[in-house]
Amino acid sequence: MAKAVLLLSGGLDSATVGAIARDRGREIYALSFSYDQRHAVELEAARKVADHLKVVEHQIVAIPAGLFAGSSLLRPGQVDTHPVPKQRTNAAMAVGIPSTYVPARNMLFLSYAVAWAESLGAQEIFLGVNSVDYSGYPDCRPEFLNAFGNAANLGTKTGLDPTTRFKIVAPLLTKSKVEIVQWGNDLNVDFSLTHSCYDPQPDHWDCGIRYLACGTCDSCTIRLDAFRLAKLRDPVAYLPSLNLLGS
Amino acid sequence: MAKAVLLLSGGLDSATVGAIARDRGREIYALSFSYDQRHAVELEAARKVADHLKVVEHQIVAIPAGLFAGSSLLRPGQVDTHPVPKQRTNAAMAVGIPSTYVPARNMLFLSYAVAWAESLGAQEIFLGVNSVDYSGYPDCRPEFLNAFGNAANLGTKTGLDPTTRFKIVAPLLTKSKVEIVQWGNDLNVDFSLTHSCYDPQPDHWDCGIRYLACGTCDSCTIRLDAFRLAKLRDPVAYLPSLNLLGS
Repeated sequence: MAKAVLLLSGGLDSATVGAIARDRGREIYALSFSYDQRHAVELEAARKVADHLKVVEHQIVAIPAGLFAGSSLLRPGQVDTHPVPKQRTNAAMAVGIPSTYVPARNMLFLSYAVAWAESLGAQEIFLGVNSVDYSGYPDCRPEFLNAFGNAANLGTKTGLDPTTRFKIVAPLLTKSKVEIVQWGNDLNVDFSLTHSCYDPQPDHWDCGIRYLACGTCDSCTIRLDAFRLAKLRDPVAYLPSLNLLGS
Repeated sequence: MAKAVLLLSGGLDSATVGAIARDRGREIYALSFSYDQRHAVELEAARKVADHLKVVEHQIVAIPAGLFAGSSLLRPGQVDTHPVPKQRTNAAMAVGIPSTYVPARNMLFLSYAVAWAESLGAQEIFLGVNSVDYSGYPDCRPEFLNAFGNAANLGTKTGLDPTTRFKIVAPLLTKSKVEIVQWGNDLNVDFSLTHSCYDPQPDHWDCGIRYLACGTCDSCTIRLDAFRLAKLRDPVAYLPSLNLLGS
């Protein structure tokens, strides 16, 4: 059984890619990152998805506070100077690089994956980037992934050996979000375990706190549209005012 | 004053590159890594060099234990299965990738540097790689640095803007070690603050423990040769049996 490293955010894309890796018979080593993201609750989702995928090992790497800066996806200080954009239309989302862009994030995450893969003797790195629905992030584009893979193979012992070159496996790269939902559904991904919202809201109830998806950030908007188009129910909990959208 | 990120190991190469960046008027943000390296004492050297260079900020990032594996440069477990090679000739050092190679290390370190640079609004990343004396590491070669720079510019907001593209600045890339020592000397690098040895040995004395350079690992061998050729005294402390070499 071949080993593979999986970048696992806890969102529906990386959960689906994990199911694809499992379906291809890979022994999965999952890698997640804690980086002061607003939606740190996604790490709880990543743990649950990792369990569900029966991964061999799941590492959560902490990126030092302050290394990433200037993104609306990061936890704000006292004053929230960078709010997460809400209720944007598809047309608005299609323009430019969104404020939720985090500096060089995929390059850093992929470099960790390559280092761990080489240490483990794995050659494949699976990740859930997608350049169709939500193409604003420069590090989700095939040009970047190809250039990164080229650098990884020039800069490592494993990559220099033609029999063990690294492969950056991004099966969702050219899929629409509805195709991703359908593919995940076909592979029995438990979407209830996943978390996509950029701006989750705490909800105090009997058993403690749970986090509800806001339903209006770009990530929720795209997710909800995809489930609607796929004629599937999104099983995660949204803010009460939005439950109709998700049903 | 332009900001720049400096990869600072605490060795003489990165100390010299720091002096070059300072000489060029850069405002330096230094980045070091703790990764269970045998010579973790180099981080103390990095702190002293950072002070000496009057950097604006010095971050030491901890890489999780177990992420890197299979290198003789990592601290051994109970049984030292990967000893650091000793007393190798120049001819022996010139063949293959040495066992001190650490998986994808420079790619990971450079990715951190790019992420921090983008967060800071810096475009230059200075590092002390050198492909002449000691060309065994694939991630010290110009092919890798070029490919990495290309990936960084394709995968970031800063890199996509033609006016702010990242520059990977490796002024020692094609220098011999003796040229590096001479250049550092010309720039008044305090070599006594630096640490190069891969296998430092504890020396218990009045004021606590200090670490002596072994004098026979590849890194010591190359360093001592360079000082000898430059007709300069290497001010760091070596094991007593080797003091003549360093004098």
